[in-house]
Amino acid sequence: MKFPKIPEAATNRLSLYLRCLNKLSQSGVQTISSEELAKRFNFNSALFRKDLAYFGEFGTRGIGYKVEDLKNHITNILGLNKTYRVCIIGAGHLGSALASYKGFKKSRFSIVALFDVDRGKIKQKIGSCYVYDFADFQKIVAIKKIDIAIIAVPASEAQKVLNEIAKSGIKAVLNFAPTLLKPNKNIKLKTVDLSTHLENLAFFLAQSKNGNK
Amino acid sequence: MKFPKIPEAATNRLSLYLRCLNKLSQSGVQTISSEELAKRFNFNSALFRKDLAYFGEFGTRGIGYKVEDLKNHITNILGLNKTYRVCIIGAGHLGSALASYKGFKKSRFSIVALFDVDRGKIKQKIGSCYVYDFADFQKIVAIKKIDIAIIAVPASEAQKVLNEIAKSGIKAVLNFAPTLLKPNKNIKLKTVDLSTHLENLAFFLAQSKNGNK
Repeated sequence: MKFPKIPEAATNRLSLYLRCLNKLSQSGVQTISSEELAKRFNFNSALFRKDLAYFGEFGTRGIGYKVEDLKNHITNILGLNKTYRVCIIGAGHLGSALASYKGFKKSRFSIVALFDVDRGKIKQKIGSCYVYDFADFQKIVAIKKIDIAIIAVPASEAQKVLNEIAKSGIKAVLNFAPTLLKPNKNIKLKTVDLSTHLENLAFFLAQSKNGNK
Repeated sequence: MKFPKIPEAATNRLSLYLRCLNKLSQSGVQTISSEELAKRFNFNSALFRKDLAYFGEFGTRGIGYKVEDLKNHITNILGLNKTYRVCIIGAGHLGSALASYKGFKKSRFSIVALFDVDRGKIKQKIGSCYVYDFADFQKIVAIKKIDIAIIAVPASEAQKVLNEIAKSGIKAVLNFAPTLLKPNKNIKLKTVDLSTHLENLAFFLAQSKNGNK
């Protein structure tokens, strides 16, 4: 399937729609209109239709969407019809939390390796996978056929780790280190700044205080 | 200051702009045009002007923005001109990672307490703060004047924790448990699903494979 270039915010929303459809499917709902869907999960029905329109025609006028069909469509669009093999670099608190994060298992992401440079952590088991020596990174990535790398090291080490990932041929990287990394043209790099979420809440609190709701 | 209702995506972008302006300020840049800003940090200059327009007039035609002024404006808009007192419920790997997350310190968020029910964790120190008994939650929230709560407990415990938070008068909650919580009309609740970030990358990988770039 070829798709037009679509905004990242729309792909984020597709993830959300998929989660809602999974819930509907679990509770036995077979068809639903975009209005009902929007009301039930508190999103914008016009935007929902627009987001789907990037990928073709779905649903039937007057009837709505078949939940299973739409779920499968979005799963395919998001590339979630296969399992992705993920490694985490950094076996500190964050790396360990991510290795045992239940949310990944619900999606099709399988954490297959952790890496660290700390001798005290190497060869330990965290969640269901082993901590390998980061010195063996290239070898293990090839053996384990890793698709995606997650950076969970201190900010000062993150660029060095990204450079090493670039050599391995991995094409997609999620960075949790709170620092801006130099983009690499062969890698899709996404940096997650956890402060942004708190800043949203601060904005809400500041607005409420000023009498806005 | 009273502001119109603006989309959450715009407040997310304001956080990003603020980060960019902080970098410019650190490197001694005094004025910058929206085009230069957009080019330097790889965002859309028209969208940038639109996002700012929600909050009034900024910048001077032909000259651009004064970096310090704009930084202060956005800081005020986001409500980041004060420090927020944050607690984390759940002192497992994720809670511990968040307690020591360097990114929060750069913003105005101060983690002042952790809570857990595990006797082995209570009274321990993680990062710079103590783990309190969740049984004392109401008392500690009042003493420490906590503004924001972060939920970092297993999915099965999250609703119970949210109900307890609601009783305390805390108005803003960030939930990391991978589950949908029942909204509470007195609380601004934001759920962070870390899988969404991986799903973005999966979408990118699926597209590349199909010959899209």
